[in-house]
Amino acid sequence: MTFHSAYRNAALTPDYAFARAHLLPLFLDVLRAHALDLEMSGTLHAGQALAALRQLRDFQPGDTDPAIPDLFYTLDREIARVSPAGAGALRTALSRNDLDMTVYRLVARGRLMTTMRAVLRLRITLLALAERERDTVIVAFTHHQPAQPTTLGHYLAAAENAVARDSARLEGALGRVNRSPLGAVALAGSSHPLNREYAATLLGFDGPVENTLDAVAGGDWQVEIAGTVSTCATTLSRVVYDLLDWAARGLITLADGLVQGSSVMPQKRNPITLEHARTRLSRTLGAAQTVVYANHNIPFGDVNDVGTDVQEPLWTLWQTFGQALELLDASLNGVSVNRAAWRALADHSESTLTELADVLARRSGDFRGAHQLAQALLASIHAQGRTLAQATDADLRALAPALDIPDGLVVDALDTAAFVTRRTTLGGPAPAALAAHLSLAADRLAADRMHLDVRAQQFAEARQVLWKEGTE
Amino acid sequence: MTFHSAYRNAALTPDYAFARAHLLPLFLDVLRAHALDLEMSGTLHAGQALAALRQLRDFQPGDTDPAIPDLFYTLDREIARVSPAGAGALRTALSRNDLDMTVYRLVARGRLMTTMRAVLRLRITLLALAERERDTVIVAFTHHQPAQPTTLGHYLAAAENAVARDSARLEGALGRVNRSPLGAVALAGSSHPLNREYAATLLGFDGPVENTLDAVAGGDWQVEIAGTVSTCATTLSRVVYDLLDWAARGLITLADGLVQGSSVMPQKRNPITLEHARTRLSRTLGAAQTVVYANHNIPFGDVNDVGTDVQEPLWTLWQTFGQALELLDASLNGVSVNRAAWRALADHSESTLTELADVLARRSGDFRGAHQLAQALLASIHAQGRTLAQATDADLRALAPALDIPDGLVVDALDTAAFVTRRTTLGGPAPAALAAHLSLAADRLAADRMHLDVRAQQFAEARQVLWKEGTE
Amino acid sequence: MTFHSAYRNAALTPDYAFARAHLLPLFLDVLRAHALDLEMSGTLHAGQALAALRQLRDFQPGDTDPAIPDLFYTLDREIARVSPAGAGALRTALSRNDLDMTVYRLVARGRLMTTMRAVLRLRITLLALAERERDTVIVAFTHHQPAQPTTLGHYLAAAENAVARDSARLEGALGRVNRSPLGAVALAGSSHPLNREYAATLLGFDGPVENTLDAVAGGDWQVEIAGTVSTCATTLSRVVYDLLDWAARGLITLADGLVQGSSVMPQKRNPITLEHARTRLSRTLGAAQTVVYANHNIPFGDVNDVGTDVQEPLWTLWQTFGQALELLDASLNGVSVNRAAWRALADHSESTLTELADVLARRSGDFRGAHQLAQALLASIHAQGRTLAQATDADLRALAPALDIPDGLVVDALDTAAFVTRRTTLGGPAPAALAAHLSLAADRLAADRMHLDVRAQQFAEARQVLWKEGTE
Amino acid sequence: MTFHSAYRNAALTPDYAFARAHLLPLFLDVLRAHALDLEMSGTLHAGQALAALRQLRDFQPGDTDPAIPDLFYTLDREIARVSPAGAGALRTALSRNDLDMTVYRLVARGRLMTTMRAVLRLRITLLALAERERDTVIVAFTHHQPAQPTTLGHYLAAAENAVARDSARLEGALGRVNRSPLGAVALAGSSHPLNREYAATLLGFDGPVENTLDAVAGGDWQVEIAGTVSTCATTLSRVVYDLLDWAARGLITLADGLVQGSSVMPQKRNPITLEHARTRLSRTLGAAQTVVYANHNIPFGDVNDVGTDVQEPLWTLWQTFGQALELLDASLNGVSVNRAAWRALADHSESTLTELADVLARRSGDFRGAHQLAQALLASIHAQGRTLAQATDADLRALAPALDIPDGLVVDALDTAAFVTRRTTLGGPAPAALAAHLSLAADRLAADRMHLDVRAQQFAEARQVLWKEGTE
Repeated sequence: MTFHSAYRNAALTPDYAFARAHLLPLFLDVLRAHALDLEMSGTLHAGQALAALRQLRDFQPGDTDPAIPDLFYTLDREIARVSPAGAGALRTALSRNDLDMTVYRLVARGRLMTTMRAVLRLRITLLALAERERDTVIVAFTHHQPAQPTTLGHYLAAAENAVARDSARLEGALGRVNRSPLGAVALAGSSHPLNREYAATLLGFDGPVENTLDAVAGGDWQVEIAGTVSTCATTLSRVVYDLLDWAARGLITLADGLVQGSSVMPQKRNPITLEHARTRLSRTLGAAQTVVYANHNIPFGDVNDVGTDVQEPLWTLWQTFGQALELLDASLNGVSVNRAAWRALADHSESTLTELADVLARRSGDFRGAHQLAQALLASIHAQGRTLAQATDADLRALAPALDIPDGLVVDALDTAAFVTRRTTLGGPAPAALAAHLSLAADRLAADRMHLDVRAQQFAEARQVLWKEGTE
Repeated sequence: MTFHSAYRNAALTPDYAFARAHLLPLFLDVLRAHALDLEMSGTLHAGQALAALRQLRDFQPGDTDPAIPDLFYTLDREIARVSPAGAGALRTALSRNDLDMTVYRLVARGRLMTTMRAVLRLRITLLALAERERDTVIVAFTHHQPAQPTTLGHYLAAAENAVARDSARLEGALGRVNRSPLGAVALAGSSHPLNREYAATLLGFDGPVENTLDAVAGGDWQVEIAGTVSTCATTLSRVVYDLLDWAARGLITLADGLVQGSSVMPQKRNPITLEHARTRLSRTLGAAQTVVYANHNIPFGDVNDVGTDVQEPLWTLWQTFGQALELLDASLNGVSVNRAAWRALADHSESTLTELADVLARRSGDFRGAHQLAQALLASIHAQGRTLAQATDADLRALAPALDIPDGLVVDALDTAAFVTRRTTLGGPAPAALAAHLSLAADRLAADRMHLDVRAQQFAEARQVLWKEGTE
Repeated sequence: MTFHSAYRNAALTPDYAFARAHLLPLFLDVLRAHALDLEMSGTLHAGQALAALRQLRDFQPGDTDPAIPDLFYTLDREIARVSPAGAGALRTALSRNDLDMTVYRLVARGRLMTTMRAVLRLRITLLALAERERDTVIVAFTHHQPAQPTTLGHYLAAAENAVARDSARLEGALGRVNRSPLGAVALAGSSHPLNREYAATLLGFDGPVENTLDAVAGGDWQVEIAGTVSTCATTLSRVVYDLLDWAARGLITLADGLVQGSSVMPQKRNPITLEHARTRLSRTLGAAQTVVYANHNIPFGDVNDVGTDVQEPLWTLWQTFGQALELLDASLNGVSVNRAAWRALADHSESTLTELADVLARRSGDFRGAHQLAQALLASIHAQGRTLAQATDADLRALAPALDIPDGLVVDALDTAAFVTRRTTLGGPAPAALAAHLSLAADRLAADRMHLDVRAQQFAEARQVLWKEGTE
Repeated sequence: MTFHSAYRNAALTPDYAFARAHLLPLFLDVLRAHALDLEMSGTLHAGQALAALRQLRDFQPGDTDPAIPDLFYTLDREIARVSPAGAGALRTALSRNDLDMTVYRLVARGRLMTTMRAVLRLRITLLALAERERDTVIVAFTHHQPAQPTTLGHYLAAAENAVARDSARLEGALGRVNRSPLGAVALAGSSHPLNREYAATLLGFDGPVENTLDAVAGGDWQVEIAGTVSTCATTLSRVVYDLLDWAARGLITLADGLVQGSSVMPQKRNPITLEHARTRLSRTLGAAQTVVYANHNIPFGDVNDVGTDVQEPLWTLWQTFGQALELLDASLNGVSVNRAAWRALADHSESTLTELADVLARRSGDFRGAHQLAQALLASIHAQGRTLAQATDADLRALAPALDIPDGLVVDALDTAAFVTRRTTLGGPAPAALAAHLSLAADRLAADRMHLDVRAQQFAEARQVLWKEGTE
């Protein structure tokens, strides 16, 4: 049978090209695991299948053949060339359904690991920078207005705190991806005595998917990945928002290799890698939606929607998210912070008025009155064409003659750096509080890194065993 | 200051109505926890704040007041009416930023618990039905064509297996939601000696959000919820796809109270609750996207996007998803299965040919040849205007005279029920395999239920303590 | 038959409440048109149906009745109470399928008209402000860096130019929405002699949907609305981005009734209506996605997905988008522009260097050399701790002694206001160019407004005729 | 300056590869138009630029050069190699901002034309098939239950009617895409005397974008494309839903080259191209969302989000949608319809009961009573273990002895084919009604095709002139 040109152009050819570029070694791994399982169950010619597979480890498939629908059949033909009996044996109790789905979970596992590593790298960068800028006073904005002084270290530690939750989410997703569909065959398993636990272990899985129909039908791990990556991407889009704002105000500057000039404006130094990070994050969210759409309103069974045809969108998801992480990490790594400009902005932001109100309230026990007095002071200062940074005890006494205002109260309360130093609440920007948080964050990072290393070793060792075992 | 009518119409009034309907008791809880913390730190008049709050537990706020922007200020005014000093004290080291975010996490926690309970209920229904229909032979479709026989119990157990992963995901999300922002105040904490761990415990949280800026800025828990609910919703949309298909073919029938007639077609009995379940799942996915959009490309700081203004979309998310779960659960609960129709469909689906090919392959050790022979048999039967169910040993012998075909081989291999019985692979539909899976699933369900009960108790007990403690 | 509580809770009750609140008069209109059509075809008792409908124009349906599934049957019962024969006649050649879909298109038409009016209002505001600020020099940013001077009027005219395209898109959608499904009955029309053109005209439609199955099945007008509103919403989200940035920098200030203070920071004046506009736009995009999901992977036939169950998402779409338009319009209407701050920012942005390069290039015919010389000047100025605004002819001559540089060249080329005056390209910011564009925009606006008025009259007149005609 | 490896890996290299593969000739076209405009305004060396561009028409750029950021600079270097003076001249009053955006609109225009052509082709296929199957009686489903008989031709004509609206939408989008940004330079135009109308005409545009800032900032045409394509994609996803359902029931069969066998189930003939069409439509919707995200919450100015970085998502949108159209068109083109199976399904669907009720109502003028009598007949027939197709006048008379029931009334009213013949309502399935609709549809198709041809000629002729004019 020859396939229709529309079918070849619009599906077979691009899908084959994708599989050849990205899935080939995983196909061989899964076939290997299946062959070892067959051998263990005493299947005739299983040893020849094993030998043929070993021989094909470096096989480079050619371009798509109009008579062969996909990479599996290309491999099947090649195995049959090497060993007809082995190829026949290998097809025992095997379907493209379980084979493909196993490959798809393996590729997702690999990309998840890469992504988790990149997220870890970004957290390292954020923490290092937070450490470096722990004393850099900035003014934080709320609702797009200067709100209160804090430190750049405090902001960066906040961002790392959020991203650390993404590491935990990705870890959760990894556990649910890392189950083996192999042995589900078409959907109902087989009458052949398969050992699904053995095959799962050979491939580094934590165990088989518990139900064979679920094994070939389930696409929820894809939607979970989409959601988890989206969660991280939205948080990062917010950090990028701030970084671009700071770059636009000259508060930070990217390193030389990360900016671009203009074709027509000689003065330009665009913080382009941050902008590209933003666009990659938007693309990540769109790719995530593609995965959701693929899983929407289709049968719960083996269909291409959650199989072959969702591979490219998932790849795009990993790819664009990886680019975003790389661009953001690079941008942060070499960033210069204009501390003087930050301090000037903070000092002129009138953002320490909260503290003056608090001090007055603590003295009077009257929050409302204190708050109103602070506002009145600001109004009176402005009416005189001055700014809050210039306010004095006299200004306050003029407004509240009855109040006992000790010397220095106003200047002291309004001092930007002192504001920060006083914010000793757990998780706040005061030096000791921030140091405690950074230490906790460093411990958490070390633990996450260790978990990741353990996982990486588990997968690497399984693969070694996979290609060492076997009697061929 | 009077607020502009556009501001009132388009934001203040609907947001106030929402808060009054859904958030009022949570506001009182959080204020209570803050007041207790203030009392512990020896804040003047904290006891009066506690007393005022207790007095207001049944307070019913009126309609929105043009001069009062939101529910917090409405409460603040009411507390001040009861106790001016208490109201003043309560404002110490408190901002709408941390207050609101704490309320928003509490409401999310509550809705998460409700959702987890509903998911559990659906799993109970699926397992009970799987148990009931463990021997009901059906034919499973792949790529929209009859593929292989299995049992309805096997299908339903597969669905439960997938949904069980959603319980785990929701549990993960709960842990990340259940952290307290309280004490972050505007974003930098306070110079007042707050005890954030104490306040967190009072509200049943697992602990404070570790960084005060992250506490008021982070919206990732919202996007995680959106993603987690989307994951479950897509899986369910697939199950609904199949159920509606089965209803359209008369293979299942919904109970009387769940169908609708037509205004013009007297014969109609529409499986309308399943259709509504589908539409609610689609709405759930859209609501989830609203949450993602809300978190996209905004500052990482206190903004309404992840605060007040995302509450209604989150509410819609919970609401529509809850409706979908309820409709699907009710539809499954009373469903009648037309076992004879299922069996007839399976018997005429020619879907046991795999087994014949397998049997032949096991005898010959030649998968390829066996597969081709099976196909040839089908073609020859069809050419004679017969169906596979009518095939005999003679038909096979005619095609492969050289082969040794024992009597009964063909009928035996092609028997639909026997096909299922032979699928003994772990996770397959054979009786023992399915029984093992259902037992595992029941244990998992019991464990999940216990975890949920423990959580529910934790939250209930904290609330009791919250309103018992205090010296007022 | 009693409906199951799940069915009532999760579908019937909320859907009834929605229909009663938003669709009641439209139901009566469509029934009226159908009754007139029946009367024209000589249907027995059609006159009694007409009389009963007239009597019910002010009918206020009570709360949902557990035995009555929806608003249609509630009306049907009420009509039968008034006139049993009329009620019977009215059911001739009528189905909820075509009745509902006609109502849904009418409500969409009404909301489209409202939306188009609000978009027009925003364009009026933008143009008026553009006129007011035609000479206000600002610096436009590209890639988050100061790029070139232009005027605020030029920016606002650009925004109006984009939004004007949305008016055209909405007009296109209106034409496709405004077709009548009535007479399609269940899907195949009727054996009764209906006159679909007559019924369509009575309801102000441009004509009937050409195919009866398409009439009850098609949901594409919903997805078009979603896409069209999303197009406008994304453009506006970008304008809001800039406005919030300008507010954060003190370049613009919102009017008093549009800002909010802080519960803890006495100095705050948050440009909150702009922030709310942003959140409403995000919600609009999510609601649009809900509509797309509703139309995805369902049968092409009468299903609730594109009928009853998509009404609330569509309502949310209109509602949130309307709120965004109202908030943005109000914010712009009373905005104060800090022209001095804008000018200072422009003057210090070094954004006129392009012009210097251009002037040099025009003299030498060597773009590349001119561009490099301009960059060299900037570098040399910066190296001396000066800014571009302080550059002189001497600075340039020092770098290019061989060049003939007439006196005043540098200062002249670098002047911010002169930069704008020289940008006389069609569509540019130079006074005459901008005036020409504003005049074109005003004409276009007047034309669009007239089209809208004509449409409004068409619909109003049809409705008058609808309730005037008839022999009852 | 060397670019950072992260910047190169994650942005510059893939973007260059994309531009080289897809945009190269368009870059040359736009540069040509600009050079002609420069020549007309008497710019020095413009003729040399024209000559250099002609020489480079077959230029094949090499792989990305680490020192060159993008394709524009690669071309710029090459032009300078051929003619330094020409290259310098060409940079006059040109920015990557307007150049890129012009290229992006041209590529969108080309893909729009291709898409419109493919949509037209699908409409031709639908109409031809509708013509062929105009008398094929089917039963249409509503709410997943058999509803009423109609013809396959009626269904297919309904689908074409819906898709015809998409042609109109795409035509609207084309008009808004086809405006020229050229001459906007960075954003404010130039002090050089450009003629933007001339340049626009040279490139086949309908005119310049009216405002230069809008010209480089606007991305609304992208979101409109996303929405328009989504509208068509959702409608097609619904048609595919039905086709796959029909294939699953054996009512239609795809041609040989469009189905796939199974690796393990010898009997399978999967209608795989329809399934792939569905997956491509889901991917299209996701790609559309990527475009919306790209345009969300970014500045309204020149940024990469709506420039370089949205090109690949747009390409994916066109590509996957094109694949879906191709797969669906091919599937429909060779489809076999199992008319006997359709007829049997219709005859046994009890879906003509509406007509019996209508006939009775017309005789009695009592819709309600007639409807109830029809339901009673069905119930009584079912109680006797018979189906509606077997009902007789006697059955009806037994239930309503008082009624005057002429001989043959029941059989006549319940006849499936007669049901269709009687549906003569405008747009219904009766032969004359359907013939009238198909004739209208054919005329509309011819008109749309002519408009498309006129557009194609406009663009082709402009391109010829573009490379013929010029004095070099």
